Amino acid sequence: MSKQSLKTVLNKKFEYKVNGTLWMECDGEGFLGPGRVELMELIEKTGSINKAAAEMGMSYKKAWEMITAMNAQAAKPLVITQSGGEKGGGSAITEEARTLIQYHTKLRQRFLAFLEKETQNLIDS
Amino acid sequence: MSKQSLKTVLNKKFEYKVNGTLWMECDGEGFLGPGRVELMELIEKTGSINKAAAEMGMSYKKAWEMITAMNAQAAKPLVITQSGGEKGGGSAITEEARTLIQYHTKLRQRFLAFLEKETQNLIDS
Repeated sequence: MSKQSLKTVLNKKFEYKVNGTLWMECDGEGFLGPGRVELMELIEKTGSINKAAAEMGMSYKKAWEMITAMNAQAAKPLVITQSGGEKGGGSAITEEARTLIQYHTKLRQRFLAFLEKETQNLIDS
Repeated sequence: MSKQSLKTVLNKKFEYKVNGTLWMECDGEGFLGPGRVELMELIEKTGSINKAAAEMGMSYKKAWEMITAMNAQAAKPLVITQSGGEKGGGSAITEEARTLIQYHTKLRQRFLAFLEKETQNLIDS
């Protein structure tokens, strides 16, 4: 075991940070991360998968695939396309999607708190 | 605010998990993550950058670039090549590298504990 302090390893001239990414998985596949959450939030805002995808610089096809995957992974659909189709009735997110986004927001806050605490420990080391 | 429980959003047939990755940054650039730690551990084990790189399926050039970057980011070199060069004297990791690896191992344990706790919360929700 090294007896040395971390202080002697880090260069005082530089700024060190602990960083990371977090996501939810479903049966080992990606289920929910910042990208899918943003897509759902933009669908809620614009009422349109097309507009939401465009705001994210993403193709409609890619957005549709993400939605199809998410809807199949959740117990109930997260995004629904109302009668009249994409151009007619538009799209919306469900109450289940809102619950999931709320959970994700809180999970993300706890993760950011973890990263901040670890970064502070590093600086104080 | 949604009043719904997360339980109704998740499908009982599937297994959900919170997963993520973690790394250290230095002035906004990647400094230390599982890859660099593994490289240092293999240099310690084999006494050779070449052998360590080969075990990771990485080119010598790539390993050398990682080491050059790490050495410049830390206060003191983490990997040293002893006199005689790579083929003559071999390479070793320093006491500073060992301190850093120890810190990284504990940081990783705290992160895994965070992920497990969040996954458990999700399952219990």
